[in-house]
Amino acid sequence: MTRILLRNCSYILARPDEPVRPGGSILIEDGLIAEVGEASGKDDIVVDCEGGLAMPALVNMHTHAAMTLFRGYSEDKPLMEWLFDIWSVEAKLKPWHVRAGTLVAGIEMALSGISTAMDMYFHTAEAARALEDVGIRGYLAIGLFDFMREDETERQLKIAEEHVRTIRNAGFELAKPALGPHAIYTCSRSLLEGVKELSERYNLLVHMHLAETTESQRKSLELYGMREAEILNEIGLLSTRSSFAHGVYLSEREIGLLAGAGSTIVHNPVSNMKLATGGISPLRSLIDAGVNVTLGTDGPGSGNRLDVFEAAKLAALAQRHLLRNAAALRVSEVLRMATTNGYRALGLKGGVLEPGYVADVLVVDLKAPNMWPPRPERLPSNLVYSASPSNVKTLVVNGRLVVDEGRILTVDVEKVYEGFERAVMDLFSEHVE
Amino acid sequence: MTRILLRNCSYILARPDEPVRPGGSILIEDGLIAEVGEASGKDDIVVDCEGGLAMPALVNMHTHAAMTLFRGYSEDKPLMEWLFDIWSVEAKLKPWHVRAGTLVAGIEMALSGISTAMDMYFHTAEAARALEDVGIRGYLAIGLFDFMREDETERQLKIAEEHVRTIRNAGFELAKPALGPHAIYTCSRSLLEGVKELSERYNLLVHMHLAETTESQRKSLELYGMREAEILNEIGLLSTRSSFAHGVYLSEREIGLLAGAGSTIVHNPVSNMKLATGGISPLRSLIDAGVNVTLGTDGPGSGNRLDVFEAAKLAALAQRHLLRNAAALRVSEVLRMATTNGYRALGLKGGVLEPGYVADVLVVDLKAPNMWPPRPERLPSNLVYSASPSNVKTLVVNGRLVVDEGRILTVDVEKVYEGFERAVMDLFSEHVE
Repeated sequence: MTRILLRNCSYILARPDEPVRPGGSILIEDGLIAEVGEASGKDDIVVDCEGGLAMPALVNMHTHAAMTLFRGYSEDKPLMEWLFDIWSVEAKLKPWHVRAGTLVAGIEMALSGISTAMDMYFHTAEAARALEDVGIRGYLAIGLFDFMREDETERQLKIAEEHVRTIRNAGFELAKPALGPHAIYTCSRSLLEGVKELSERYNLLVHMHLAETTESQRKSLELYGMREAEILNEIGLLSTRSSFAHGVYLSEREIGLLAGAGSTIVHNPVSNMKLATGGISPLRSLIDAGVNVTLGTDGPGSGNRLDVFEAAKLAALAQRHLLRNAAALRVSEVLRMATTNGYRALGLKGGVLEPGYVADVLVVDLKAPNMWPPRPERLPSNLVYSASPSNVKTLVVNGRLVVDEGRILTVDVEKVYEGFERAVMDLFSEHVE
Repeated sequence: MTRILLRNCSYILARPDEPVRPGGSILIEDGLIAEVGEASGKDDIVVDCEGGLAMPALVNMHTHAAMTLFRGYSEDKPLMEWLFDIWSVEAKLKPWHVRAGTLVAGIEMALSGISTAMDMYFHTAEAARALEDVGIRGYLAIGLFDFMREDETERQLKIAEEHVRTIRNAGFELAKPALGPHAIYTCSRSLLEGVKELSERYNLLVHMHLAETTESQRKSLELYGMREAEILNEIGLLSTRSSFAHGVYLSEREIGLLAGAGSTIVHNPVSNMKLATGGISPLRSLIDAGVNVTLGTDGPGSGNRLDVFEAAKLAALAQRHLLRNAAALRVSEVLRMATTNGYRALGLKGGVLEPGYVADVLVVDLKAPNMWPPRPERLPSNLVYSASPSNVKTLVVNGRLVVDEGRILTVDVEKVYEGFERAVMDLFSEHVE
């Protein structure tokens, strides 16, 4: 495998909760970080990182990547009208549309410093291939829902099993299958029990929407006489293998259950505010209870940009606002949510720039005016509150150079745009926008 | 004066509340827009805008630009501790520090598509010169406060008058003086009356903090037995010449007074959430009442980035969240806040790309993945919810090319950074960070 030397980094943030270190070099070998600091040697690729800060790459723990196709579509409408517009087009999606949308999403994520995405959607084989082509880690959580119809449950579980086989047999380097039971109000208990069984049999991550609205909690109480995390706990779906998007409306007891099980909450602040559900996840309580908290952008319909820097800043702003406390979340806690906690949720030894960890490295350009002053004491704050995709200089994923000097190296962007244009024309030509 | 031809724009958003038009060229002459559509001719500078959308440049209606010096300083502290840290360094600021900080801010704003800034700070002559050098419009609202001490009032008014003379006599093309009485709780009634008198005598804009917290309203009631906008109305400070930052805690009566007077509210959503004041400006009510609503970033201490795209998106998100209504603010309303309403607040014929309007033009790069799909129907939404400074391709201010292909043309960035570094070293060397 290729050896990469990231030379001359001005600063290194090796762990999100440690001080920024003076710079140096990072040697990458066989997809892993081999040396940090004084590294040098016979290297295949040398990247000059002068004026840059090297840090663990960002993780986007919740998205529906192919929904780039829907970005900006049917805006300015009340939630249910908007959803109806989306669904009526989504029903027509074919695998090639999903590939086209996911390619654009993958490029955007790579250019935004994201090494890894948890992507909940369908036509997962094409989504997997798209992220694999871009060169970022894709966890393809196939969307499952039987709408409480017994005759549909078995079919959904078969689709899930087929998905696992397809992705595992495709010979992908980075793309992995996962299970995505949609939500408590769209999946029957039998389906959720089936998902738990599959997850154990095939050792799979489970990714699900949880407590996004008061309505989903009301539905859970109606169906099971229990709150969402309580019934999932009873079914056995709370574990270190499970991550839950949103987690806005959670009781203290549910937070305790999630913490006890080692599960992950994925906070999507842009989506929560945009969809106007009225709530903001109680991150302070979740973190204090020991829950692993991560960040997501949600799909480009409800989040628009696939930007974890934006999610990180808004997570901090929203928590300060919610608690009326300017010290509600520490900068280091937000950086952990954006990086290390994501790798932990996926069972990857990543999110740390030290020998033996996976080589997912982001180099942030400190020469941009919004990063000034680039003093070591201020850099962590500047990363959370001031950085943006425009500051992404270099991205290495699993030891492969994916972005350099802000340009994507892995796919032909013009060709991707052509395919995307065709997909949008095919899907929306009959729809008045 | 130079003639500039912006050729081959793929799309033109001539007014924020009109549909996007098919592209063409824009001819700029003598600082004004001369032709839109089929323009061509003998031009001094031709800029190819293929793949770009031309729109009115953004206006940042509230900042303390030189506070780039404080970006990332003393983060993670409760509000009062943070303020105390800032003030203890601010007391040492000299004119050359303000110049250094404002130059970096000006570069950042230009690269973010901002043509115009309302800057409330001190050492205004140096701040003016910095923004003038960068080539963006600076409205220098000198910060005034007598802390209710009668012996200080006259001195503040003399400082204000001196500021007006200095800026007006300096021969600046774009920098203009304005008056910045700080807030109801730091300015005596005599000072506010003096400001009103100066504003009329010299025909000056007035810029002031208003109703940022419940505490400032409490103080107003204690001092005057009236709410903030009520006493300002009595003094005669509500007019089309006055703009007010924040306006979070306003009664229906105050909103009516502001609307009736033709005053402007500057919404600073990042700052409101970051400083954890608990409130979000009631934009829906303000707009419905007829108040001219604009956007600000606040200073880089409380907003960090000087990014009006960010302010626009968060304004929309926050209003949806506040009202639990996904249709709380229309895309066109947000675009007006970011552009046209700002020019209106300043009494400039701008914010529209039609002949006779000031030539403040922003070209947004539609080739970036986060702007896809670049369909005309979706572009307004993509500008509000998905655009970021990374998409800024070209900026023309008052008929001068300031940014092209994402690079600043007017100042030597390396030299600016050297001066900034010296200022930060000088100010913070004794402070542990």
